[in-house]
Amino acid sequence: MVKEKINQAIEILKEKNIDLWVTFVRESHTLTDPCLPLILDAHCTWQSAFIISASGETVAIVGNLDYQSIKDNGNYQQVISYKASPREDLFETIKKFDPETIAVNFSTNDHMSDGLTHGMFLLLQEYLKGTPYFERIVSSEQIISSLRGRKSPTEILRLKKAIQITIEIFQSVTKILKPGLTEKQIAEFILTEVERNDAGLSWDPATCPSVFTGPDTAGAHYSPTDRKTERGHIMNIDFGVKIDDYVSDLQRTWYFLLEGEKEAPFAVNKAFHTVKDAITKAAEFLKPGVEGWQVDDIARQYIISQGFEEYPHGLGHQVGRAAHDGAGTLCPRWERYGDLPYLKVEAGQVYTIEPRVTCEGYGVATIEEEVVVTESGCEFLSPRQEEIYLVS
Amino acid sequence: MVKEKINQAIEILKEKNIDLWVTFVRESHTLTDPCLPLILDAHCTWQSAFIISASGETVAIVGNLDYQSIKDNGNYQQVISYKASPREDLFETIKKFDPETIAVNFSTNDHMSDGLTHGMFLLLQEYLKGTPYFERIVSSEQIISSLRGRKSPTEILRLKKAIQITIEIFQSVTKILKPGLTEKQIAEFILTEVERNDAGLSWDPATCPSVFTGPDTAGAHYSPTDRKTERGHIMNIDFGVKIDDYVSDLQRTWYFLLEGEKEAPFAVNKAFHTVKDAITKAAEFLKPGVEGWQVDDIARQYIISQGFEEYPHGLGHQVGRAAHDGAGTLCPRWERYGDLPYLKVEAGQVYTIEPRVTCEGYGVATIEEEVVVTESGCEFLSPRQEEIYLVS
Repeated sequence: MVKEKINQAIEILKEKNIDLWVTFVRESHTLTDPCLPLILDAHCTWQSAFIISASGETVAIVGNLDYQSIKDNGNYQQVISYKASPREDLFETIKKFDPETIAVNFSTNDHMSDGLTHGMFLLLQEYLKGTPYFERIVSSEQIISSLRGRKSPTEILRLKKAIQITIEIFQSVTKILKPGLTEKQIAEFILTEVERNDAGLSWDPATCPSVFTGPDTAGAHYSPTDRKTERGHIMNIDFGVKIDDYVSDLQRTWYFLLEGEKEAPFAVNKAFHTVKDAITKAAEFLKPGVEGWQVDDIARQYIISQGFEEYPHGLGHQVGRAAHDGAGTLCPRWERYGDLPYLKVEAGQVYTIEPRVTCEGYGVATIEEEVVVTESGCEFLSPRQEEIYLVS
Repeated sequence: MVKEKINQAIEILKEKNIDLWVTFVRESHTLTDPCLPLILDAHCTWQSAFIISASGETVAIVGNLDYQSIKDNGNYQQVISYKASPREDLFETIKKFDPETIAVNFSTNDHMSDGLTHGMFLLLQEYLKGTPYFERIVSSEQIISSLRGRKSPTEILRLKKAIQITIEIFQSVTKILKPGLTEKQIAEFILTEVERNDAGLSWDPATCPSVFTGPDTAGAHYSPTDRKTERGHIMNIDFGVKIDDYVSDLQRTWYFLLEGEKEAPFAVNKAFHTVKDAITKAAEFLKPGVEGWQVDDIARQYIISQGFEEYPHGLGHQVGRAAHDGAGTLCPRWERYGDLPYLKVEAGQVYTIEPRVTCEGYGVATIEEEVVVTESGCEFLSPRQEEIYLVS
């Protein structure tokens, strides 16, 4: 897969008219540039530069202790080993390519394109000081955005597998649900199922899974508590698994029927279907060329039009090796999102769509689905939740 | 432990005469500033600032989805939640403290003090543009260096536990060793023992453990191979475990006796004892106030004086939450190490000492021990390897 991605990167460099892309890292196991696993099958300890040229050439400059391992991996055509300092090899390599633009991994917008630390940026500037290349450093955001975003068929298959296992685990959850279970007990059950499937978790174990039951919960990004499921309450779960380095991110909603109740109350159903219809409307609009904020706005305005408060976050994000896979995002034009809302949707990207609605007195209705952008629209990768799941 | 470390940070700020320390992060589960676990028991998604003042006050500014979780953790006296942008809260908070210096986490020298990405640095500058604080940003390297380096009694206990389990696993390895095992088989045995001890690995699983047998191995930082242990060869293992978030990092050396041999050949013993004596000499010199390169130089020159080639790396590094725990390092004055060789050793720091010697035709003799720096010298935390382990 690394070779596949490096070749894709070369094509993207040509398309974006960028001559050279330098990923400059050190102690990568402690602080992993999020794009490194895309272009390297290993870790490195000393300062290392992984250089990909629009001409198709690839060079790795690494410390002598890492040399053999990275050479044997075979990801780079040329592997150069140094002892005291990478300065000379780095400069000579760059000089050989004589690039007009050198892209490095920083971005104010996209955390996935922002793996270069400020100290490493200063070091790179120091190594290139007094050379013409000092002024030619640009952000690699558009390279990484396309490289992460445009999923290959292999990547789509892996994402689908992660979705499938997640859906199966949601089905198992439905079978064991009853009033009186704590959020923690439900989370523990899910973790056992994850282990039984030899899967990993999609994000931080403290909040994966997240389980929220009843009204006035803490909101998103909170660990499961000792609060118990109760009849007459809504419960929602936010959860995903990691399979073969690719993850899922889905949400589902349940309602605990009161004694004698045959279906959820009108208010609960209205909340659920407002979320569901908001997803449908957003998906119908989503296609290459639209800007992320426009998609968010369709779901957001629809929810407001139904008399609910707008959700306090973006409508969706990309999914890939990480649950928040970076760049192009379906989010409102809030300053904290920088330029992300204005990025144009591209074919091959996989997005979540995840509006939420608070149903006063019952809890929070959420659904999160995953879609892949096609040439003319988008397709659901996850089988949709059509109705709220009822627990009797 | 987080409260303990935050209080220690306040004292260090006073001592170093720095008014304010701002740890500025986002999507911390994807890219974790290495100092974050010291000062926060959680992760955060949106841009978040964790602010510690020399006056003893602490403030966290976080996105609304993370608010409840971080507030309930109770690590920060004040937790401020934002929706659209942290700009105003960040500026108002800094203005309230009106600091002369604002330390943020970047460093060309020390990867552990370099958790701020370049994109986040630019964002911070953008938020402070046009204010007097723009010019007051400095590196937090000396804060983090002391905060990570000066181990509390709790931290020393955890490090000792990790060492103890590692030593026990080395003893188990000695029991099962015989000629004809592959490096991979030995590594697998070690991993089973790690699991049996409910421990984690100290670094990248690809090279933890590292197992090298015989002459002409790949050198350090290489995964175990199908090469088999043979009589007449040296084998060494580099390995550590993680227990309660703290790790160990140790190396041991074995010799496989030829048929009829009762002890290792003279050349092998000379190599082993040169390494061992180099460690003794370095430890005798190691005390607060000396510079790292001086300690390295004592071991390096001793090894050269015994007719061996010098080792192609530093003599030792600190150990803590990570195997390469950052800042003060016992390393030569090579450019790639920046200013690290010149940092003065401080009491409370835990260092490895790990010279290596190639024994032509046999393999590589390595020993790695761990020591804690005391007020007047240092003490070994690991029970030393006194003789090469013999496999008959």
